[in-house]
Amino acid sequence: MTTDVTTPSAPATSPADLLAAHRDRLDQAVAACAARTFYSAFDESPSPRVYGETAAAEGKAAFDTWLGGAFPLATPGSDGTVASERSPFGFDLGVAYPRVPATDAAVDELMSAARRGMRAWRDAGPEGRTGVCLEVLARLHGRVFELANAVQHTSGQAFVMAFQAGGAHALDRALEAIAYAWTEMTRTPATALWEKPGRGEPLRMEKTFTVVPRGVALVVGCHTFPTWNSWPGLFASLVTGNPVVVKPHPGAVLPLAITVQVCREVLEECGFDPDLVTLAAEDPADRLAAVLAVRPEVRLVDFTGGTAFGDWLEANATQAVVFTEKAGVNTVVVDSTDSFRAMCQNLAFSFSLYTGQMCTAPQNVYVPAAGIATDEGHKTVAEVGAGIGAALDKLLGDDARAVELLGGVVDTGVLERLERATGHGEVLVPSRAVTHPAYADATVRTPLLVGLTEHDAEVYESECFGPVAYLIATASTDRSVALFRDTVQRRGAMTAAVYTTDERVLDDVREAALDAGVALSENLLGGVFVNQSAAYSDFHGTGANPAANASYTDGAYVASRFRVVQSRRHV
Amino acid sequence: MTTDVTTPSAPATSPADLLAAHRDRLDQAVAACAARTFYSAFDESPSPRVYGETAAAEGKAAFDTWLGGAFPLATPGSDGTVASERSPFGFDLGVAYPRVPATDAAVDELMSAARRGMRAWRDAGPEGRTGVCLEVLARLHGRVFELANAVQHTSGQAFVMAFQAGGAHALDRALEAIAYAWTEMTRTPATALWEKPGRGEPLRMEKTFTVVPRGVALVVGCHTFPTWNSWPGLFASLVTGNPVVVKPHPGAVLPLAITVQVCREVLEECGFDPDLVTLAAEDPADRLAAVLAVRPEVRLVDFTGGTAFGDWLEANATQAVVFTEKAGVNTVVVDSTDSFRAMCQNLAFSFSLYTGQMCTAPQNVYVPAAGIATDEGHKTVAEVGAGIGAALDKLLGDDARAVELLGGVVDTGVLERLERATGHGEVLVPSRAVTHPAYADATVRTPLLVGLTEHDAEVYESECFGPVAYLIATASTDRSVALFRDTVQRRGAMTAAVYTTDERVLDDVREAALDAGVALSENLLGGVFVNQSAAYSDFHGTGANPAANASYTDGAYVASRFRVVQSRRHV
Repeated sequence: MTTDVTTPSAPATSPADLLAAHRDRLDQAVAACAARTFYSAFDESPSPRVYGETAAAEGKAAFDTWLGGAFPLATPGSDGTVASERSPFGFDLGVAYPRVPATDAAVDELMSAARRGMRAWRDAGPEGRTGVCLEVLARLHGRVFELANAVQHTSGQAFVMAFQAGGAHALDRALEAIAYAWTEMTRTPATALWEKPGRGEPLRMEKTFTVVPRGVALVVGCHTFPTWNSWPGLFASLVTGNPVVVKPHPGAVLPLAITVQVCREVLEECGFDPDLVTLAAEDPADRLAAVLAVRPEVRLVDFTGGTAFGDWLEANATQAVVFTEKAGVNTVVVDSTDSFRAMCQNLAFSFSLYTGQMCTAPQNVYVPAAGIATDEGHKTVAEVGAGIGAALDKLLGDDARAVELLGGVVDTGVLERLERATGHGEVLVPSRAVTHPAYADATVRTPLLVGLTEHDAEVYESECFGPVAYLIATASTDRSVALFRDTVQRRGAMTAAVYTTDERVLDDVREAALDAGVALSENLLGGVFVNQSAAYSDFHGTGANPAANASYTDGAYVASRFRVVQSRRHV
Repeated sequence: MTTDVTTPSAPATSPADLLAAHRDRLDQAVAACAARTFYSAFDESPSPRVYGETAAAEGKAAFDTWLGGAFPLATPGSDGTVASERSPFGFDLGVAYPRVPATDAAVDELMSAARRGMRAWRDAGPEGRTGVCLEVLARLHGRVFELANAVQHTSGQAFVMAFQAGGAHALDRALEAIAYAWTEMTRTPATALWEKPGRGEPLRMEKTFTVVPRGVALVVGCHTFPTWNSWPGLFASLVTGNPVVVKPHPGAVLPLAITVQVCREVLEECGFDPDLVTLAAEDPADRLAAVLAVRPEVRLVDFTGGTAFGDWLEANATQAVVFTEKAGVNTVVVDSTDSFRAMCQNLAFSFSLYTGQMCTAPQNVYVPAAGIATDEGHKTVAEVGAGIGAALDKLLGDDARAVELLGGVVDTGVLERLERATGHGEVLVPSRAVTHPAYADATVRTPLLVGLTEHDAEVYESECFGPVAYLIATASTDRSVALFRDTVQRRGAMTAAVYTTDERVLDDVREAALDAGVALSENLLGGVFVNQSAAYSDFHGTGANPAANASYTDGAYVASRFRVVQSRRHV
């Protein structure tokens, strides 16, 4: 189910009219979340047949307009500007954003501006706020090609992936969060009549229930998925009544600057204070997020990024409810397969997609040292490595095709880890530099596959973020399952997968995945990959292991973003 | 709507059968929570007409049996026993419970015993666990008179209140928590078919969703409401799959020992590990709660008690989700009334009920210094004080009737605060000692009403837990409203009330209550009191001000007590 072209904006600017205009979409999203069936409100195909002949060029032109200039946003408390973005495809964006210094005075001003519009926003009620937020999504959808370019040239995602993961799918994840919040806010009626039977007349009371916000919400963006990972928290907090301060990653500001611009535009048109959503760009040396996160006004924090800062937030921002997505060691247990080639192709794709720079990309592949049974006969560990290598060669042999899957390397840290990883074990498949046909200065690499044994725990128990996978020989599949359970319990994981033809093994791995609290993909051989999760159906992260304390999107992700305050009187 | 006599236990001990046996009750509770209308599954009247002629005597006899003996519970890690309870009605209970020392070895043993049965409990699923928990409630209801005696002689609540607040209403609050958890656990289907349209065949996946627990849940009980305040968290955690360690207040162990006994009995009958619910009694000097709360195995903490330890838990038990109910300054804004006598009676009752030892009892009564308009003409502040004094005299003039409302003083700290409070301002209504006709050694006091002005902020901005209320003269009602908003925002409150005949004032106070995040009762003149909240309809606490970070019961109270782990495969 897809929409035609981009979503038309509602002509009206009354929040109630906006809700009415987008009501079908909301209802469909709510229903899909409950059924966990397929749904998408935003077409994932950037094809001219869907979005029109001129959309792509117009979006590219809109993106180009921003380059080398000052982005037109006003942030209270800001002082000067900062321009910190460089495309992994080889050029500086040169877009200047208002810089918020990490000083008390600046942050005081930002916080009081953020809070100024809270009461009117609260009084808009779930209906008004949901209408406004759905209109924001519709307008972001109208700028989806511009956003895709912005995501491509900050994260390094190839264009189609940037359009999908950074545009259409991110919009679906945002809508999902709004749908969950809507359900949660409206589960309690606005008014109720309470009538307690007694000896004589019953006691009768009329009660009023009002959704009230928690306070300022801080969203800390990441470099690799500036929209997909930030929008769920941003919209979940905003729609439940909280002002939102968006602190983007210095390397991926533009997609969130566009987001903030659209939020402010719709808020203002509807008569709300635009400072309900602000962009707090920083000089990277300022460590602004750490300053903002512990402010008493800040009652909600959404963070995607490294484990160290995520753990710090959980331990230190105790005045707030903190939602984190951090790092983990995503695991594949390979026991046996009835389709060796398809398994190797599926794994090769998962390693390659966006150069393995996904929090969901697999890293640790456990294979019994004695080899595995397959439809092509018994395969040794070396043969499994060779099979994956062949699949990678086929997938990435042609540079022009390869770059559309790999995209660019997001930062030098990835290159350094990739370099070091060659010394971690036996290089089964080397990484190679790919020349981008369109961007001569792009940094593009293919995945590295390193052979280890289960004794190399000091290597494979840490996340090596980037295009590095480990093929780990274990004593047996039982041992693989035990390592999987134990490592994920201690080090976390966003995803797990298993390949087996043995029902007993499948049961064991399912049990281990429940114990470890990680989502499991079983025998993926076709067009679904372990690193992909579908909005409304797949939970992204579980909150049940150290990789994340939250999930996109469940009740726990939205329920504590607001409170209900009641009043009562006799009638 | 009430049940006849006590709830019959289901004869079956299969969890599925238990759910079927109690299904109507669950469905009714779920419906009431959504509608916020009146519902009660457990009759609040201790009358023989409801519970039978022998129930009261049998319950008293069952309570008496425990006195001076060893309570038959085994707690892993315990060493020796501890007997620390003294009835506020003047005698030592002398019940000995297994003592858990605050040592690593003891707590290690307790934690591993608690976790031992987790997997089977998880695998019971929402249906099985809910069936078991509903059966526990039914059996606790069968022991409601015994529980009422146990609550009376630990908390000091008078018998009828102990029966209601400690028995029937506590069961309703427990059922409410189970109902919310049931709704939350079952909003995601156990399985779903996902079908994504494509160019050729659609992508089809079967998905499985499993509710998994967070880890060990710690419940820290309080002295005044050992069941009412502990059961919501206990059952919310247990029904969502978590083992529960109950750390009772040393002064109120028996009601929770009975609770734990019933939980273990039903768990064991159904084939689960009884150590899923354990009692961790302590020597008060051990400060066991602080040791348990920061254990890595503990992922959920429910606490009711003082602000200092509650704040400590929120700041230090960062490995857990912490739900706290702490202290606050409950406020009444008196502006005007069309029923002066009824207002004074209503306030007098609220001050007197259980000697003001309720977290919901009003403390700060703001009155304009110029006096108020009433149906009996203009009343000065002194006349308002005198009106409340007259109502207190009428309510409490007869000792035999007074003790049934007041109950006993829970600890010496209350007496000390009461003594000190006479020096805080002008004593408008003195407190007096009441002689209990049945318990010569009972400690019973009537409320103290002290006159202050708005300049005495250092007095009225702190909770003076116990039978102390302040009548505070302010410059105007507008000033009262401003003080109300400001004080509650900074110091918290569980309840607020207003008396006014002026719609503008009512609007202002409602707005202030929303800003301060506190529930408001308007012009209570009859059989409803500000310190009472009704399960399924009234939220107890909001989580929106410093007095509590949670509410009985909303989605936020249950949603983060479990996680959903999925698996998926092609079909």
